[in-house]
Amino acid sequence: MNYRLIAKTLGTVLFIIAIAMIFPLIVSFIYGGEDAKSFIISIAITLSVSALLLLIKPKNNQIYVRDGMAIVAFSWILVSLLGALPVYISGTSQSFISAFFESVSAFSGTGASTISNIEACSKGVLFWLALAQWLGGMGVLVLMLALLPAVRGSTLHIMSAEASGPSTEKLVPKIGETAKILYTIYFALSAVQVLILLIGGVNWYDALTVTFSTAGTGGFTTKAASIGSFNSLFVEIVVAIFMLLFGINFSLYFIFLTKKSIKEFFKDEELRLFLSVTLFSTLVITIDNIIASIYNFADSLRYSFFQVSSVITSTGFFTANIGEWKDTSQFILLFLMIIGASAGSTGGGTKMIRLLVLIKTVKREFLKIIHPKSVQTIKVNGKAFDNNSLNKIYAYYFAYFLLIGAGTILVSFDTQDFVTTFSAVVQAIGNTGIGLGNVAPGGSFAVFNPFNQMVLSFLMIAGRLEIFPLLLMLTPSFWSKSNM
Amino acid sequence: MNYRLIAKTLGTVLFIIAIAMIFPLIVSFIYGGEDAKSFIISIAITLSVSALLLLIKPKNNQIYVRDGMAIVAFSWILVSLLGALPVYISGTSQSFISAFFESVSAFSGTGASTISNIEACSKGVLFWLALAQWLGGMGVLVLMLALLPAVRGSTLHIMSAEASGPSTEKLVPKIGETAKILYTIYFALSAVQVLILLIGGVNWYDALTVTFSTAGTGGFTTKAASIGSFNSLFVEIVVAIFMLLFGINFSLYFIFLTKKSIKEFFKDEELRLFLSVTLFSTLVITIDNIIASIYNFADSLRYSFFQVSSVITSTGFFTANIGEWKDTSQFILLFLMIIGASAGSTGGGTKMIRLLVLIKTVKREFLKIIHPKSVQTIKVNGKAFDNNSLNKIYAYYFAYFLLIGAGTILVSFDTQDFVTTFSAVVQAIGNTGIGLGNVAPGGSFAVFNPFNQMVLSFLMIAGRLEIFPLLLMLTPSFWSKSNM
Repeated sequence: MNYRLIAKTLGTVLFIIAIAMIFPLIVSFIYGGEDAKSFIISIAITLSVSALLLLIKPKNNQIYVRDGMAIVAFSWILVSLLGALPVYISGTSQSFISAFFESVSAFSGTGASTISNIEACSKGVLFWLALAQWLGGMGVLVLMLALLPAVRGSTLHIMSAEASGPSTEKLVPKIGETAKILYTIYFALSAVQVLILLIGGVNWYDALTVTFSTAGTGGFTTKAASIGSFNSLFVEIVVAIFMLLFGINFSLYFIFLTKKSIKEFFKDEELRLFLSVTLFSTLVITIDNIIASIYNFADSLRYSFFQVSSVITSTGFFTANIGEWKDTSQFILLFLMIIGASAGSTGGGTKMIRLLVLIKTVKREFLKIIHPKSVQTIKVNGKAFDNNSLNKIYAYYFAYFLLIGAGTILVSFDTQDFVTTFSAVVQAIGNTGIGLGNVAPGGSFAVFNPFNQMVLSFLMIAGRLEIFPLLLMLTPSFWSKSNM
Repeated sequence: MNYRLIAKTLGTVLFIIAIAMIFPLIVSFIYGGEDAKSFIISIAITLSVSALLLLIKPKNNQIYVRDGMAIVAFSWILVSLLGALPVYISGTSQSFISAFFESVSAFSGTGASTISNIEACSKGVLFWLALAQWLGGMGVLVLMLALLPAVRGSTLHIMSAEASGPSTEKLVPKIGETAKILYTIYFALSAVQVLILLIGGVNWYDALTVTFSTAGTGGFTTKAASIGSFNSLFVEIVVAIFMLLFGINFSLYFIFLTKKSIKEFFKDEELRLFLSVTLFSTLVITIDNIIASIYNFADSLRYSFFQVSSVITSTGFFTANIGEWKDTSQFILLFLMIIGASAGSTGGGTKMIRLLVLIKTVKREFLKIIHPKSVQTIKVNGKAFDNNSLNKIYAYYFAYFLLIGAGTILVSFDTQDFVTTFSAVVQAIGNTGIGLGNVAPGGSFAVFNPFNQMVLSFLMIAGRLEIFPLLLMLTPSFWSKSNM
């Protein structure tokens, strides 16, 4: 492995993180500078680590798939560790493990929190956690590639290890340019949301933090009652729609912008499945909530649509306590946590396109039985998947379910109930941020002991990086000398 | 599709079922003949249906994969319907739907029951449900092939549609002979268990019914406290060991008997995984139960081993209430329900060999990342799986999980709690017979409304037939005229 290049890249990423910490520092000063000290210390530490790593000079720019995975895995662990500093130093979290949990939760776009009295926290730290969701949503390494295309080597391996979905499409031949386009779309869409919220009367601090959280499909808010605290149908609808927009494959926006065809946009099979599942789930949950006499029709549609949009995109905002809904609704939301949003979006879960492949895999087997001599290929948007890509998707699913199994058993040693444990694990690996039982909206992940906070942190990073980079680091052969 | 041949085969199967009903009729007479009438009526109806179907003369003996699937699916539905007659006519179940549930549960080797006061039921009906487990365990169609090898055509398609596991191995060139060998081993192993139980002082009725239930990995017993009612360490150990024996691939016994090599026997990768998972789960649950101060060491080992053996083989006998154990133990048992026993055994679940393939699929992906240029094949026992077989396994898993999802949502409309609903579905498709929550040992499936009893019945047959035969029947293209 090219350790020297890995070190250099890590140094660059940490430099970007240090720069990013300046924004919450400014916010801190605006609100009286109460937690400015914790940011100044954090920036100093992060810059020092960055400088140390940048001292290492790589001998060559060769990056293999394995190096890409290592860069991404190490970056996320380091970024989460250093990103936890302001949270810890400011005293927002009592222990470093909890601060690390918050940091991982933010960067991975999960939004699960152990902080008990969120509204008493300092504005700077909350702004930092919001910004971290925005940075992690599209990816800190993708940002690096967008800002510093000068980083050489096969940077595609870095990009595909951090981006979500089974295949990383290059929008334009150059990786750096692709990263730039993605971040431009991301930035523009975020700016539009901020503007709409400001026009709707939301103050600038809330507009920014809510948008960061929506864009990164994080779901962490600066209020205990989440989006429900705004008590505004306008804000709910804007946020619900933007959550869905950030859950769509960004390359579709690029196609839309370059081809200027809305028809082309809606022809995408993954998008159709995403919208169909959203619609269908909203309908069933709306009806389920009416039958259970929890809401009238209008309220039921309102809360159901918001929660489906929030959970399917793995955001985790809430306006209602899903833990009090009936089992049918809870099961649907739990399954949506696993299914997740579109590939190439900032959303989590296993991604719609993989579900599409999975359904087509079952269908292919059916057709094989009915027409044994025919050859069936699996196509999405008219493009056939080769065996290699399919096997990667299958392996990903199995690893995902094996991790849910292992995670559940580890977390279950704690004295939580069945539903809390299971949903906490499913939401962690899916980067949702809300679960059921004690971790339903209104609950807190502080119920878990430090060991389980670590397990859940691991699952959050594993889920965000689509499992392989992090799991690979646990295998001895990953560290073997072979350079192939 | 060759409907005429399908009809004739169904007639033959029902004839065998009518003959099988003579045994409980005899038992009924031994115990005073109280429910003899219900068996006489049931036999008359079954024979009539059989005769009607046998009147249809097939034009040719061509059986394609699809016909094999149709034969198996139809047989199982018909056999379950007619097998429900004695249960319904005797008044054991109040409704025909519940009687059908019992019949499906018995034939599929599940052992879940809606009968409230089992010990008050007539001996004949309970004997019938026990015998049905034995017949369904190895397969009613396999029995037909063993008894009447004269049935022509590609009977391999029938056998592989009913037998469990990803690949049906022919032990000897002829299918009929293979079926005979399997049933001989099955019969012999059952006879040994009966003998050991008789020697241990168990009366002949209990020895027979418990053995039928063990052999078919059904788990239905004639007592409310299941195996716990014997209050005998001897019976528990015998049953626990025989459950495991019936959960091993029967072709291994054949290899052992022909090659006379115990080394060869234990070299089998699937067997090793099966025994390792059993051992590991037993250890963890033993420790978990000691930590929770539920038992002392000896009792903990005793109850944990029995329940692991019972659940991993999908039998569902119990000597303890797993619903009262700690979450870690409950989660492990729930996952064991999904994993299940070995292929080619009478056990349920997704089978050990598929788990082995799944783990190797993930491992292959890891190796591909580390050594991108190497070609990795997936081998079990030194034999490589081709892409076709692998895709079948992957499709099976996905269909299995999709069914768990769909089943959970359907069953959740009922007013059960989360754990009851989820575990009821997982145990149904895995053919286990016990769940958690209200369907834990001591509970009853009578808590579910008739609609859900039908859903669970569907899942039990789908699970027993490894999903494809039953799911295919729900697709329109399965019924299309194309003969390919």
